Amino acid sequence: MAAEKKLWGGRFAESTAPLVERYTCSVGFDSRLYAQDISGSKAHASMLAAQGVITAAERDAIHRGLDQIRTEIDTGTFAWRQDLEDVHMNIEHRLTEIIGAPGQKLHTGRSRNDQVVLDFRLFVADCLKEWSAQLLALVRVLARRAEEHQDVLLPGCTHFQPAQPVSLAHHLLAYAQMLRRDHARLADALKRVRVSPLGAAALAGTTYPLDPPQTAAALGFDSAFSNSMDAVSDRDFVLEAVFCGSLIMMHLSRLCEEIIIWANPRFGFVRLPDAYSTGSSIMPQKKNPDVAELMRGKTGRVYGDLTALLTIMKGLPLAYNRDMQEDKEPFLDTHDTVSPSLAVMAGMLAELEFDAKAMRDALRSGFLNATELADYLAARGVPFRQAHHITGAAVAFAEKSGKGLEELSLDELRGFSELIGEDVFSVLGHDAAVARRRTSGGTGPDPVRAQLADIAAWLEENE
Amino acid sequence: MAAEKKLWGGRFAESTAPLVERYTCSVGFDSRLYAQDISGSKAHASMLAAQGVITAAERDAIHRGLDQIRTEIDTGTFAWRQDLEDVHMNIEHRLTEIIGAPGQKLHTGRSRNDQVVLDFRLFVADCLKEWSAQLLALVRVLARRAEEHQDVLLPGCTHFQPAQPVSLAHHLLAYAQMLRRDHARLADALKRVRVSPLGAAALAGTTYPLDPPQTAAALGFDSAFSNSMDAVSDRDFVLEAVFCGSLIMMHLSRLCEEIIIWANPRFGFVRLPDAYSTGSSIMPQKKNPDVAELMRGKTGRVYGDLTALLTIMKGLPLAYNRDMQEDKEPFLDTHDTVSPSLAVMAGMLAELEFDAKAMRDALRSGFLNATELADYLAARGVPFRQAHHITGAAVAFAEKSGKGLEELSLDELRGFSELIGEDVFSVLGHDAAVARRRTSGGTGPDPVRAQLADIAAWLEENE
Amino acid sequence: MAAEKKLWGGRFAESTAPLVERYTCSVGFDSRLYAQDISGSKAHASMLAAQGVITAAERDAIHRGLDQIRTEIDTGTFAWRQDLEDVHMNIEHRLTEIIGAPGQKLHTGRSRNDQVVLDFRLFVADCLKEWSAQLLALVRVLARRAEEHQDVLLPGCTHFQPAQPVSLAHHLLAYAQMLRRDHARLADALKRVRVSPLGAAALAGTTYPLDPPQTAAALGFDSAFSNSMDAVSDRDFVLEAVFCGSLIMMHLSRLCEEIIIWANPRFGFVRLPDAYSTGSSIMPQKKNPDVAELMRGKTGRVYGDLTALLTIMKGLPLAYNRDMQEDKEPFLDTHDTVSPSLAVMAGMLAELEFDAKAMRDALRSGFLNATELADYLAARGVPFRQAHHITGAAVAFAEKSGKGLEELSLDELRGFSELIGEDVFSVLGHDAAVARRRTSGGTGPDPVRAQLADIAAWLEENE
Amino acid sequence: MAAEKKLWGGRFAESTAPLVERYTCSVGFDSRLYAQDISGSKAHASMLAAQGVITAAERDAIHRGLDQIRTEIDTGTFAWRQDLEDVHMNIEHRLTEIIGAPGQKLHTGRSRNDQVVLDFRLFVADCLKEWSAQLLALVRVLARRAEEHQDVLLPGCTHFQPAQPVSLAHHLLAYAQMLRRDHARLADALKRVRVSPLGAAALAGTTYPLDPPQTAAALGFDSAFSNSMDAVSDRDFVLEAVFCGSLIMMHLSRLCEEIIIWANPRFGFVRLPDAYSTGSSIMPQKKNPDVAELMRGKTGRVYGDLTALLTIMKGLPLAYNRDMQEDKEPFLDTHDTVSPSLAVMAGMLAELEFDAKAMRDALRSGFLNATELADYLAARGVPFRQAHHITGAAVAFAEKSGKGLEELSLDELRGFSELIGEDVFSVLGHDAAVARRRTSGGTGPDPVRAQLADIAAWLEENE
Repeated sequence: MAAEKKLWGGRFAESTAPLVERYTCSVGFDSRLYAQDISGSKAHASMLAAQGVITAAERDAIHRGLDQIRTEIDTGTFAWRQDLEDVHMNIEHRLTEIIGAPGQKLHTGRSRNDQVVLDFRLFVADCLKEWSAQLLALVRVLARRAEEHQDVLLPGCTHFQPAQPVSLAHHLLAYAQMLRRDHARLADALKRVRVSPLGAAALAGTTYPLDPPQTAAALGFDSAFSNSMDAVSDRDFVLEAVFCGSLIMMHLSRLCEEIIIWANPRFGFVRLPDAYSTGSSIMPQKKNPDVAELMRGKTGRVYGDLTALLTIMKGLPLAYNRDMQEDKEPFLDTHDTVSPSLAVMAGMLAELEFDAKAMRDALRSGFLNATELADYLAARGVPFRQAHHITGAAVAFAEKSGKGLEELSLDELRGFSELIGEDVFSVLGHDAAVARRRTSGGTGPDPVRAQLADIAAWLEENE
Repeated sequence: MAAEKKLWGGRFAESTAPLVERYTCSVGFDSRLYAQDISGSKAHASMLAAQGVITAAERDAIHRGLDQIRTEIDTGTFAWRQDLEDVHMNIEHRLTEIIGAPGQKLHTGRSRNDQVVLDFRLFVADCLKEWSAQLLALVRVLARRAEEHQDVLLPGCTHFQPAQPVSLAHHLLAYAQMLRRDHARLADALKRVRVSPLGAAALAGTTYPLDPPQTAAALGFDSAFSNSMDAVSDRDFVLEAVFCGSLIMMHLSRLCEEIIIWANPRFGFVRLPDAYSTGSSIMPQKKNPDVAELMRGKTGRVYGDLTALLTIMKGLPLAYNRDMQEDKEPFLDTHDTVSPSLAVMAGMLAELEFDAKAMRDALRSGFLNATELADYLAARGVPFRQAHHITGAAVAFAEKSGKGLEELSLDELRGFSELIGEDVFSVLGHDAAVARRRTSGGTGPDPVRAQLADIAAWLEENE
Repeated sequence: MAAEKKLWGGRFAESTAPLVERYTCSVGFDSRLYAQDISGSKAHASMLAAQGVITAAERDAIHRGLDQIRTEIDTGTFAWRQDLEDVHMNIEHRLTEIIGAPGQKLHTGRSRNDQVVLDFRLFVADCLKEWSAQLLALVRVLARRAEEHQDVLLPGCTHFQPAQPVSLAHHLLAYAQMLRRDHARLADALKRVRVSPLGAAALAGTTYPLDPPQTAAALGFDSAFSNSMDAVSDRDFVLEAVFCGSLIMMHLSRLCEEIIIWANPRFGFVRLPDAYSTGSSIMPQKKNPDVAELMRGKTGRVYGDLTALLTIMKGLPLAYNRDMQEDKEPFLDTHDTVSPSLAVMAGMLAELEFDAKAMRDALRSGFLNATELADYLAARGVPFRQAHHITGAAVAFAEKSGKGLEELSLDELRGFSELIGEDVFSVLGHDAAVARRRTSGGTGPDPVRAQLADIAAWLEENE
Repeated sequence: MAAEKKLWGGRFAESTAPLVERYTCSVGFDSRLYAQDISGSKAHASMLAAQGVITAAERDAIHRGLDQIRTEIDTGTFAWRQDLEDVHMNIEHRLTEIIGAPGQKLHTGRSRNDQVVLDFRLFVADCLKEWSAQLLALVRVLARRAEEHQDVLLPGCTHFQPAQPVSLAHHLLAYAQMLRRDHARLADALKRVRVSPLGAAALAGTTYPLDPPQTAAALGFDSAFSNSMDAVSDRDFVLEAVFCGSLIMMHLSRLCEEIIIWANPRFGFVRLPDAYSTGSSIMPQKKNPDVAELMRGKTGRVYGDLTALLTIMKGLPLAYNRDMQEDKEPFLDTHDTVSPSLAVMAGMLAELEFDAKAMRDALRSGFLNATELADYLAARGVPFRQAHHITGAAVAFAEKSGKGLEELSLDELRGFSELIGEDVFSVLGHDAAVARRRTSGGTGPDPVRAQLADIAAWLEENE
């Protein structure tokens, strides 16, 4: 496009090099913000009219034109032009085609600098609300699966070594708690996303009698900007959103890791639904946990998006710099990763089959009841550190004999401490061990039921 | 240390390899958490006594012993031992030396897994409170310097090109706004830091009749954990803290970049205090903005700490894994970077000399009043896009003539539009341009005064 | 697509969930590797025939079919199908449509695991060769601009403070040296990219009498894999490529930073070509260094790609895991950033106007000749540390008087050291200062000419 | 320290603020470069004397003084001073104390800018050589363990699902191949580390008749710098070193992940040596793979170091900037992680017990011989894709019957294809399956022996 046709081309004698046009053009991705751009422009036009800057007729023409454009884009008949650089110029150019002169007044008191942030804040807010809803849905699935599996025990691990038996319900709810934190973090982030920059103009505010709080309210924002230079150059809100996305993916990656390991026949704790796994082109027996692997891998790309944004913002002087155009693609990539990941995980978990028998079989190895013996001794007055040592010796003995602690004879056990009596065997059972952990937040049936109730209440509140 | 002497050595026949002891030992850095470890242990002992698990006499002995240890550490007489691995074992071992048997009961119903998270949460909370106070102090300096420089104008830049004149006050307050967001983010993060994990034990909760909410309250936390497996394996709180630190450093790096550029004689906008700059070993004339450069550079290390933590946590199965021991050093490094950076910046800014004359001289180049001319035309009915084009042409003409727009004759200006009249010259002045930006959040004197008042109120609230 | 139709669907009863199909599908990006996939398949078919696994007629049919597919894709008539998952399945499916039964034999002794790495290695190698050529082109432009500007002096900075005068040629050639290192690094990386994995099959090698070195040679690779499990799970080559890309972008970002600062009117060292800058929608005077800013910003995304890949690969057990499918998009993003950045920078630099006068004017502030005075004193027997102190005092005095060192009177100078004589003034001139730096690699005209000759020879060698 | 006492203090009226002194001081970490600093200074003095800039007597005095300082530091009697900022100033200050005036001449023609890079390049080169030797040692252990376990088979996995049987030797050698690449990468990196910057002085070269190639050669470097501005501001060599370290840690993290999983009793493939594992303070039975977990976690910190360095260098204008002082700690952290990790892994692997029986037991689940059946059918003329489908159906049938493929009757098998004969059973055995993979790089005994021989030759070459 010849320079003189560009919206900013007044002082330019030469055209943009084609390679540069491609390099700087953003319409390939920021066109995804068209709904937000149109909403923002309509609110701006309404405010301009309310403040007497444009007439009511001009406002109506602008609204009508923008509505038509929205329909054109929705229905795929809008012709995007790369030479018009971005979503804003594309829409404004078309607006003037449709409604003529009033279209040229829409940009009064506004700059692309505040416009682009506004659109992006609206867009990010919409995405975070979507994630929040998806987090709720996933917690709901986890809670349901936990509810169904309160009696299923499996080896709880630390250092990926059997540690103490836990209920599958408790194990699943640990993830529900992570996701609840994610949900809370999104709510906090949203407070800082929903601040309208409209009225900051290029960087200094504007000479028109604009009313920034009015547009902020009209767009459902909590407040308007406090400082125009900050308003056009702040990208904290995107960084916070992508950080929240990073933690969500990190949490999902942990669950994925467990699903992948559990699906290995050595564990056999889960059977993947056919709809959530794929096969191999060469090995006919394979049923691969691809979805979980891919999700674990996709964690990396969201971390990468965060790195990108942090790098971009470092050391930038005030106010807007073009580097900031690079803010959108990392967020879009994060959104396109987080949102389907949450949905796919909910779907997969809903259909995942847990093999209670395999889990219980696994309790037999690893001396998961050793802590019970130590606690038993401590309850009989042995200082815990000493009880720990006695039990360690008993475990070493049992291991050599190829037995579990519960399979040793009373005599054998008493060889390690005279304080051990017949009642020790009732203590060494896994169900008993779980049942005894009844303080709040523990794996015992009571605290798990309380946890389920608490989550149910929270879900209802946030519906 | 021989395996049988290790607190966990019961079943071990062989000693830890010396290389491994060094590799796994954490006392070199976690000894910094000794105050938190002792507070946590005292609260645990009190709760154990309140629940009847230990006697009042045992509790008192434990408290007395811990107080003595605290004094020993405070005064540098405590002998840290690498073979005791970490701060927890070092303190507990010494406790038993001092008070004998009751010392061995302290660990009842507790594991290093919940203990280490407790200590760390207490420590992180203390650090975040320190940052919050430092942010307030820095905002106070910025507000004071802004207050002093409300009449000083400088070129406001976008794309690091002169855009429109702004007041130095407004420019400085943009940073105050960034730091206010940082402060709000820390408050949000603290909600998730102040959750007590005590009672989660190794991973499954405990069989002792502990009262987690009691220790949580005694330690000033908002609540206790909801799920024991999550409690011992959650590191979201550190990640959030380091993310907050990353944004603080990012904001500081932007201010540093401006100070560095402004200190170059081509700008000469600031003169660095001697106490905040250094010289060159070879070039005698040098007065370098080392502090600002170093701070900008240190942003990288906090980003690195965040990357480290995100990487560590990805894909870890439940519950505690030793990888998580790597959580402390990145946070300590972040704290040791963020805290002095905030202090140094406050000190440097307080003494920085701004050269109002150099700033005003700079307004002469760059056609900072071009927007005024465009707005002038728009106010006379020219659609903004067209006004923009007319002004662009005038700028190109003035540039060729080596003049500012305000130095063109009326005839010359009218050559671009008949609508231009004598009154245009009053519009083209920089002070007038700034004064006309009077909507909220703009650079005009009124909104800047309002911004200062708002910040003063906020500071008072958060005192 | 119904499971039984999938190439791996034999044991699957249920279809892939549509959401999962979208989630796991890679054809959206790996279709960019079609040329490499076809080359790889043709080489595989030739080898299969040479080894007697398929007949010559089958090989010819396969070649014919693949050539036709290549034409279909080149001309845009190929119908990509998402349900066929990836580029490999899409092409193989079409091959069987075209040539029937022999198409089904192509996959003999091959797995998607080795096929996907082969295609990717071919693709990465092609990209790195493209970058290498672009680096040469950019060095050529730098050398040409340096050659033209050997006599132009500007303030050489350390700490972004004027330090010593340097020639613009020398300054530009510093970037040429960075890019030469990039070129050497690419050559080293290519050695590890060009290793053929074909024959590793799924992970264990194959039972067919394949000849891996034969396909390696046919595809222009240096060697074949050494260990089949490593072959299918190694992604070092992509990491190395993206790391090389990160350093290239880092180097470009430094040059961008300088261009951006130099384009600010306070410096005015460069004038941007119209074709490589853009304007503002609101400020008619603006001519923004958008291209340089955007390139500086895009550095972040390549860093992000590196972070993504490093994260993905951490802690993956042998051998292939689906996480690795996430290797392609970060590399493609890096390639789509690095390649146009190199091209755009070459174009921009070729047309950038340097303002020699502005640069020389800048030499007047900052006491760039202070080192000369210190060296002058040192040459007269004053220990350097002491000469440094004397000069520092003279600078402080001159600064207060608002003069340059060369503007002080001989008497004033002698007030600082009796050893100073009339000849000091010939030493204080900037051209003389530059000319005196004649050791190799220095900024003097002779070493700069030598540097230019060396670069010219290197360019010729690598043509 | 009062400003006038600082080596650069000539023009400074005020002292550095104590907080700033701490903030900018580097002696806390760069003192680790003292040996390199002294070597560099000795070479510089020799060259100065050879060029006639100082006398032979001065050179000798300097050498003597530096040797004495080296002894003082080696023996711990050297008094490091924070107010002297860095290792260079500390040593030079002490040198003048010891030898008087000649000490002040050492800095002639040198700046801290080239000195600091020289020291660092020498240091990095030493570290990389250490890593190279450690890589060799680790490959040697892997090769020995592989040699011992050529007949041990285990399930080779893709997607962490059993895929095909492989030999433990082959599995271990996959890691040897990764480490060989690491070794080659270090050699390539070293070429770019071993370039001497001495003579670049502050940034512009020097007016003294120095001979940079002479010092380069004296210090064992391959060449001297080509451009003085590049020489003082290039940190590519550190970045490359840390990148190499990142890949080493990534490779180790993969091996760690496998050791951790294999140590879980569900697998039981390995038993950890007591000396390389630790226990639990609460669970007496625990024997945790702490070392492997910690090493996996430490991968994150090296990634973080890389992120830090990349961030620091982005967008820095020429030449030296103080941000670059932040280059040393990330590298030191990387070195302090990579070097002991390599040593610990070699020690642990040397003593790791592999449980051949547990591995073989594991071959029974997962239909690892399914590919054999498909290949069997393909060899009988069934197109591979069809053979794959037939086998998939057979697997589904066997799975339902709770049998392995080899446990189905011939009739049952023939139900899937008439082409199956009695000879199928010899094909379905795991040892036979491994033995049939005899092409180069495969898991068969022959190619594994060839691989071992190749590694032995490589080790010998690099001894």
